[in-house]
Amino acid sequence: MENKEVISNVSKEGLAPGTLLYTGTPNSDKVKITAITYNGEESSVVELRTLSQIANYPLEGQVTWINVDGVHQPEIVEAIGNHFGLHQLVMEDILNTRQRPKAEDYGEYIYFVIRMLDFEKGGKEDELTREQVSIILGKNFVISFQEKTGDVFDKIRARIRERKGREVKMGADYLAYLLLDSVVDHYFRILEVMGQKIDEMEAEMIRNPGNDTLQEIFSIKRELIFLRESVSPLRETVSTFTRLQNSLISQDIAVYLRDFTDHVMRVIETVETYRDTTSSMVDLYLSTTSIKMNEVIKVLTVISTIFIPLTFITGFYGMNLDFMPEVHSQWTYPGVIVAMAVMVVLQLIWFRKKRWI
Amino acid sequence: MENKEVISNVSKEGLAPGTLLYTGTPNSDKVKITAITYNGEESSVVELRTLSQIANYPLEGQVTWINVDGVHQPEIVEAIGNHFGLHQLVMEDILNTRQRPKAEDYGEYIYFVIRMLDFEKGGKEDELTREQVSIILGKNFVISFQEKTGDVFDKIRARIRERKGREVKMGADYLAYLLLDSVVDHYFRILEVMGQKIDEMEAEMIRNPGNDTLQEIFSIKRELIFLRESVSPLRETVSTFTRLQNSLISQDIAVYLRDFTDHVMRVIETVETYRDTTSSMVDLYLSTTSIKMNEVIKVLTVISTIFIPLTFITGFYGMNLDFMPEVHSQWTYPGVIVAMAVMVVLQLIWFRKKRWI
Amino acid sequence: MENKEVISNVSKEGLAPGTLLYTGTPNSDKVKITAITYNGEESSVVELRTLSQIANYPLEGQVTWINVDGVHQPEIVEAIGNHFGLHQLVMEDILNTRQRPKAEDYGEYIYFVIRMLDFEKGGKEDELTREQVSIILGKNFVISFQEKTGDVFDKIRARIRERKGREVKMGADYLAYLLLDSVVDHYFRILEVMGQKIDEMEAEMIRNPGNDTLQEIFSIKRELIFLRESVSPLRETVSTFTRLQNSLISQDIAVYLRDFTDHVMRVIETVETYRDTTSSMVDLYLSTTSIKMNEVIKVLTVISTIFIPLTFITGFYGMNLDFMPEVHSQWTYPGVIVAMAVMVVLQLIWFRKKRWI
Amino acid sequence: MENKEVISNVSKEGLAPGTLLYTGTPNSDKVKITAITYNGEESSVVELRTLSQIANYPLEGQVTWINVDGVHQPEIVEAIGNHFGLHQLVMEDILNTRQRPKAEDYGEYIYFVIRMLDFEKGGKEDELTREQVSIILGKNFVISFQEKTGDVFDKIRARIRERKGREVKMGADYLAYLLLDSVVDHYFRILEVMGQKIDEMEAEMIRNPGNDTLQEIFSIKRELIFLRESVSPLRETVSTFTRLQNSLISQDIAVYLRDFTDHVMRVIETVETYRDTTSSMVDLYLSTTSIKMNEVIKVLTVISTIFIPLTFITGFYGMNLDFMPEVHSQWTYPGVIVAMAVMVVLQLIWFRKKRWI
Amino acid sequence: MENKEVISNVSKEGLAPGTLLYTGTPNSDKVKITAITYNGEESSVVELRTLSQIANYPLEGQVTWINVDGVHQPEIVEAIGNHFGLHQLVMEDILNTRQRPKAEDYGEYIYFVIRMLDFEKGGKEDELTREQVSIILGKNFVISFQEKTGDVFDKIRARIRERKGREVKMGADYLAYLLLDSVVDHYFRILEVMGQKIDEMEAEMIRNPGNDTLQEIFSIKRELIFLRESVSPLRETVSTFTRLQNSLISQDIAVYLRDFTDHVMRVIETVETYRDTTSSMVDLYLSTTSIKMNEVIKVLTVISTIFIPLTFITGFYGMNLDFMPEVHSQWTYPGVIVAMAVMVVLQLIWFRKKRWI
Repeated sequence: MENKEVISNVSKEGLAPGTLLYTGTPNSDKVKITAITYNGEESSVVELRTLSQIANYPLEGQVTWINVDGVHQPEIVEAIGNHFGLHQLVMEDILNTRQRPKAEDYGEYIYFVIRMLDFEKGGKEDELTREQVSIILGKNFVISFQEKTGDVFDKIRARIRERKGREVKMGADYLAYLLLDSVVDHYFRILEVMGQKIDEMEAEMIRNPGNDTLQEIFSIKRELIFLRESVSPLRETVSTFTRLQNSLISQDIAVYLRDFTDHVMRVIETVETYRDTTSSMVDLYLSTTSIKMNEVIKVLTVISTIFIPLTFITGFYGMNLDFMPEVHSQWTYPGVIVAMAVMVVLQLIWFRKKRWI
Repeated sequence: MENKEVISNVSKEGLAPGTLLYTGTPNSDKVKITAITYNGEESSVVELRTLSQIANYPLEGQVTWINVDGVHQPEIVEAIGNHFGLHQLVMEDILNTRQRPKAEDYGEYIYFVIRMLDFEKGGKEDELTREQVSIILGKNFVISFQEKTGDVFDKIRARIRERKGREVKMGADYLAYLLLDSVVDHYFRILEVMGQKIDEMEAEMIRNPGNDTLQEIFSIKRELIFLRESVSPLRETVSTFTRLQNSLISQDIAVYLRDFTDHVMRVIETVETYRDTTSSMVDLYLSTTSIKMNEVIKVLTVISTIFIPLTFITGFYGMNLDFMPEVHSQWTYPGVIVAMAVMVVLQLIWFRKKRWI
Repeated sequence: MENKEVISNVSKEGLAPGTLLYTGTPNSDKVKITAITYNGEESSVVELRTLSQIANYPLEGQVTWINVDGVHQPEIVEAIGNHFGLHQLVMEDILNTRQRPKAEDYGEYIYFVIRMLDFEKGGKEDELTREQVSIILGKNFVISFQEKTGDVFDKIRARIRERKGREVKMGADYLAYLLLDSVVDHYFRILEVMGQKIDEMEAEMIRNPGNDTLQEIFSIKRELIFLRESVSPLRETVSTFTRLQNSLISQDIAVYLRDFTDHVMRVIETVETYRDTTSSMVDLYLSTTSIKMNEVIKVLTVISTIFIPLTFITGFYGMNLDFMPEVHSQWTYPGVIVAMAVMVVLQLIWFRKKRWI
Repeated sequence: MENKEVISNVSKEGLAPGTLLYTGTPNSDKVKITAITYNGEESSVVELRTLSQIANYPLEGQVTWINVDGVHQPEIVEAIGNHFGLHQLVMEDILNTRQRPKAEDYGEYIYFVIRMLDFEKGGKEDELTREQVSIILGKNFVISFQEKTGDVFDKIRARIRERKGREVKMGADYLAYLLLDSVVDHYFRILEVMGQKIDEMEAEMIRNPGNDTLQEIFSIKRELIFLRESVSPLRETVSTFTRLQNSLISQDIAVYLRDFTDHVMRVIETVETYRDTTSSMVDLYLSTTSIKMNEVIKVLTVISTIFIPLTFITGFYGMNLDFMPEVHSQWTYPGVIVAMAVMVVLQLIWFRKKRWI
Repeated sequence: MENKEVISNVSKEGLAPGTLLYTGTPNSDKVKITAITYNGEESSVVELRTLSQIANYPLEGQVTWINVDGVHQPEIVEAIGNHFGLHQLVMEDILNTRQRPKAEDYGEYIYFVIRMLDFEKGGKEDELTREQVSIILGKNFVISFQEKTGDVFDKIRARIRERKGREVKMGADYLAYLLLDSVVDHYFRILEVMGQKIDEMEAEMIRNPGNDTLQEIFSIKRELIFLRESVSPLRETVSTFTRLQNSLISQDIAVYLRDFTDHVMRVIETVETYRDTTSSMVDLYLSTTSIKMNEVIKVLTVISTIFIPLTFITGFYGMNLDFMPEVHSQWTYPGVIVAMAVMVVLQLIWFRKKRWI
């Protein structure tokens, strides 16, 4: 969640738009390309060994899903892009992994960018990381690009392979919807984890609040800023998607898109609610701190105000002056004690009246 | 109001959209199905013992209202849904009880989701709970699903049974409006309770503010965040409802919808006003605290500033040095007393000038 | 301005929409009905003794204005409503005196709700109260309902009786505009009073700020929240009014409506400006408090820091130990004095460098 | 900038809209009417001595500009208004000098209201004052009304008289634009002065911040609230102006209107930027204050925490008890000194660890 | 980033719109004019020595790009403007270097204003400066005006000269897009630098926060205000640009414009995220400060509360009164010690219960 990451095509500045260059985190994993084809009757999952195999796809009469894990090799993206007739800018955006979530209609295909968020395992603490997922929806094919292997698409893949579920009977548009929806569904997992953290923070704040609690709340706040930045452009994406009633998107999936819209809205609203809640928690925390400080200061003041004058009196009769006539009187001692007692009582009454004690 | 609850289809992640699975709080109550039919001349209320009885409905020439208390048995929702030709996604949304309030037009019927809010009786303190109410408005029938038995619909049921009121003469669209309106009307009860709490808090804050007062205000603030989250999507719902001028909704109820819109707007505005009011209360509380602290510190400062120098003087003449010539003078004692008195007077003048006392 | 009041149809919950029931503050005044008729040539003002007299109105060829003071007798509202063919919901809204300001087109007539605000005379302090004014504009009649006698309509009535002014020559639509405008004009009086209070607070805050000042600013803030809640829906009302270019509203009064819109906008903007101003005042007040506290603490610190070490030294030589060799030296006394003086000077230099004194 | 001024037609409350009454500050200056006529070939500037001279205008084939300095004589406004066929409401608005900036299309003419702002010379400090400028754009004439003599129109007048510049070749619409633009241009002067003040405040806040600095920042904040209130309705005005593509406004000046829009937007944005900047300054100021207080309190605490225990020890051996055996030991004195030194060192280490010193 | 700079045509106030006058920072550099022409086959870069050479351009059948470095000589802008038929207002806006970013369609050409931001090298610290870039897109030419030599256009120039890249094959519209995009791309560099600063601030705030940290955060906040002011009008510019589907902009570059829009949106969102982040940091900083102050005050209070009463007791028995009977008892000394120990222990228990230690 370093701010540097947020920046995008910095290193491309000055280059003509259209130069293919990977701008994400360096990555040495092998790029893995999987071709999944299916229709109502059959399905197959093939891992492509060589880039040239891509020429066999898309299969006629089937839905073809090309999934690419790793975009750090521009030549692979270029080869696939050229084969499927993608625009230069689309290929750039796939490689330049800091795009805003968006849906762009290129006529022959629609290009989606969405961010997959996850808590990174390991490390001192779970940190929110993001990965750009590019999805291209064509006439009878879907191409998806991810930055890393291992993803939320596994279950979809499994169901297609086993030819279970509604998806095998429907077109490429349904598959694209499914992929987008599974990314958004994963946001709910993120939000659940955050919600638990917030609940824990809240409990801790009542039991035993400390500086750490505060820092953790602020760290959640920053994660929410990060999350909101990733999620809020989805509103636009969704409305673009819904408006795109062209030949690529059939009437049948309109209800699914509406459902998807709903999920996106729910994510956005939950993020907003969490932001309100954490802000409210910080306010409560600071208010409580301020009230406690007030109480502490009152104790200090009461003690000081009672004893400082008394101590002055004792100091007064502690002076070693030769000529202090009352020192020799036997009534001075009880007199001093009575005077002190009266002072204390008066002060206590005054404090009580002021509601300090 | 745990944040975990806010999350919705987490456990469904990866499943194909379309899998029927109940995701709400576990519930072992028996699901209760009531069929109410009426027209201008007759009315009947039947509790269905077996699921197969559903096949008798809807009755021709009457308005049929199927009310289902409990959605934790997917098979029941599925049976009813299939009988009335509901879309798979509608059945899912009925079961998945954390939907956003919405109105969706499926052509043959309209699907409404709304949240019923209530203060949970018992427990250490009244806590706001929510329950999802799904309402399906078809040509001559209304189906309503609730999570729990016992609801705000009782009075509507009673009036239909006794064939009193306008509703028996009007169509299913009016009944749907009536159900939605009774849920929104119940929000006013919630707001009334909150308004009273706020008034009490305010009175307490003037009489005897404490840390508890603050915590209670913040708890109301959180409830308002919760309430707003439930209520604000209704604005959209209402506008969808109003736009849906299809064959299911007759011109006659347009004025009722406008009235409903008005109620929703009033709820939303009241929530906003309460939020402003509580924020203002917290600000006032903290300001008052800060001002009191200032006063306390002033007292401390005045007392310390007066006595610390005096005590120094007494300490000075309390030193047991052999060679302190003025100690032996008989003018030292009155001199010290006069010096002290002058110091005190000067300080008091200075404090008065600074408006500290 | 109790929050309870804000709530509206609570006690009606569960009743069918359409049940006539007065929900405002109990009121035992007699309802007063006045019928005013006029055209360019003649005008008459009649107080109706019996409800049946209403049957004589509206007069053909004249503008008829029925003004009803008091809506706590549902039967009167019902009788008038039925005579003029008002919808059931309109009658309900007239009785249910916590409606949002609105303009609703019922084809044959337009129904307006607006809130009349006033400072209640008497009591410990002027408190803002509100009264619902319902105005029905029909073909050649206007009906107005108020909660209490005594209103801002007196001058309009007077002018009609004396057949002065433009109004007698114009239609019912102009009269409706006139009534609405006189309510909005009265808001300016409210704002003027508030503006004066704010100016006074500001002057007091410079002269002699205290806890009371703060509480009064917050009370103005709450009144502004209240005012805004009453005024902001007017924006909508006005735009509805302007859009309603049906047979009831002639082209001639379009310019007056525009003027009315302008007044409403001015009220809203002034409320916003006042909110900004009071917020700014609270901020300034707290900032000043904080700065003063800083100053007080500095004084405390300077005094303590100077004298505490000195007092320690005097205490040191005040110890009654038998074996303290330097006590017997004649240089100790001047030495101690010089040491103390040096310490004080060094501390003063240090404080000066730190800009504390 | 008294709030009372903000209020507008208070004293008119209850009067029929349409009563001509001056509601601004009393003014005894003579109203000065100037008639300026020009076309491409000739130009003349005439000061009208009697109101009847107005009958000569507008001149055929020339652009006529009637400028009226002073609107405190309703009869003058009425005479001019009647001669040029102005609507009653326009005359009212000219007289009632607290209108919102607006542009209203009356078919035959367009009525503009704009506020001229200026720092009032003299007085203890420059205070922002406002003056309402009403501009009426008719077929071949422009009428402008100001509250006071002396204005930003002087240079325009001069250029017309000398027949320099583009304006003499263009129509009345260009002249109206020119007048409006010169008022808006003057806002930049206001903003420049404020910008300088803000820069000064900022410098002062770094050098030597004090309570005065804060008060001055808040006074600038209030001026910005005032400015924004005057400027923000201009956005609307401008969009109305641009939309009014009727016979009064020629295509040729569309680019000038766009330019004008731009100036208005720039003023609004600059006001917003200044608001952000001053808010940021206040925050920084308070933060700095809070940090300094922290530092002061640390010093107090360190000094007190070190010396209070030491003073206790000296006090302990200053007791005059007969039976205190260690007092007679010769090791007590060095023992006490060592103990004190150790305590001080330990405390210093502890403070260092806590980063307090 | 002086506020004075923000102001624009102040010195032009009163002048007729249309007077050519340079209003930027005085500049004595020589104005440098470069003419670049190219098509698919050839390209040339010529630096114009005399202004009259401009008459040779634009070349037929080629794209002509006139780049002018320096706008402080109005006569040059006027000559070029007149040659290419630019409107008077365009020339003014080029000279008046404080325009809002905008896109204006003049039919024959489109006029763009955009702000180039950069950190000024040298000086005590990098300060954000801005430079106005005016771009005119005509049928087959582009004219660009900058305030200073040295710019982000160098790489584009280089690529055209070497006839690499897509641009040489495309029209003037693509070149205009390229120039705008390179300016926006440079914003990412600015944001990257800021992002790094924010990350550093954050690390420093955890390690060793100080007053300087705070001042630096506020300085970043001000830069963000500055940046936002420059960037946010681009949203509008972009939407104007996209809407301008006239003969000057070919269908082919629609996708590039969409890409450009995306970059602008990303810049705006990043600025917003940074603003949120810095605000959050300030909040955290102040909260931490407040918590630390609380801790400091607790230490002071605990120490004072423990020792002040003890010191009083020692003072009490330090009084030199003749008649203090218990002084002579041998149990007083151990009694006093025990009493003190008990007091300390009780206080410690009390502090522990209050969680102060």
